[in-house]
Amino acid sequence: MQAAIREAELGRDEGGIPIGSVLVKNGEIIGRGHNRRVQDLDPVVHAEIDCIRNAGRIGSFKDCILYSTLMPCYLCAGAVVQFNIPHVIVGESRTFPGAREFMEAHGVKVLDLDLLECVQMMEAFIRKSPELWNEDIGVL
Amino acid sequence: MQAAIREAELGRDEGGIPIGSVLVKNGEIIGRGHNRRVQDLDPVVHAEIDCIRNAGRIGSFKDCILYSTLMPCYLCAGAVVQFNIPHVIVGESRTFPGAREFMEAHGVKVLDLDLLECVQMMEAFIRKSPELWNEDIGVL
Repeated sequence: MQAAIREAELGRDEGGIPIGSVLVKNGEIIGRGHNRRVQDLDPVVHAEIDCIRNAGRIGSFKDCILYSTLMPCYLCAGAVVQFNIPHVIVGESRTFPGAREFMEAHGVKVLDLDLLECVQMMEAFIRKSPELWNEDIGVL
Repeated sequence: MQAAIREAELGRDEGGIPIGSVLVKNGEIIGRGHNRRVQDLDPVVHAEIDCIRNAGRIGSFKDCILYSTLMPCYLCAGAVVQFNIPHVIVGESRTFPGAREFMEAHGVKVLDLDLLECVQMMEAFIRKSPELWNEDIGVL
């Protein structure tokens, strides 16, 4: 989770949305990413999407754990379900409830660490840029 | 739908997976895309994702229709639900049932044109490259 938080901080320092993600397979990080909506003018590059993209065509995700600083939205949860990623660990879901139930209904194991560090980073961002945040989650 | 089929043909002619998509707003095409897994070595660039990415940061999708030659999978359906795209029109769902029920459960209007042209293009591809197709839909 520390690596995902570093990704979120990287995104924040680039002027982007501070959400980070890493993909771990058999104990090793095989992909890292962060939300790049602002940086790439791309509405679909959420942190988890960037992370899975950067891991590349790895074939099966069955031994993978996806870490994200925030509970995945339906887009990212859809990737988790479609590619059969069995385990998702998130930093928090207080600032955004995401699609936990949808993932769990499809057999994904979801663990919410409820980390104050992640909550505070998102709260600071949402306070500073509420319109950008609403754009990112489709609340328009 | 003809523009989405042209995108699928473009993808096929590039050696990729022949699925195409266009995004229409107020009667005008504002984004086009096709599956680029093979071309970009990117597992998340399904046709609909490429199309939405190419449309860019348009803000609200409330007046949009997403056309796709094939019923969207959970990844792409997740994008539809998260970004509140109200209407999806697909070429077919015979070769892949996709996530129609999930979209409809979230209020998305889904129309399946059941076009033989789309069915035949996918059938020819799946016959030729079954492993690539299974990789694309996470059946591994």
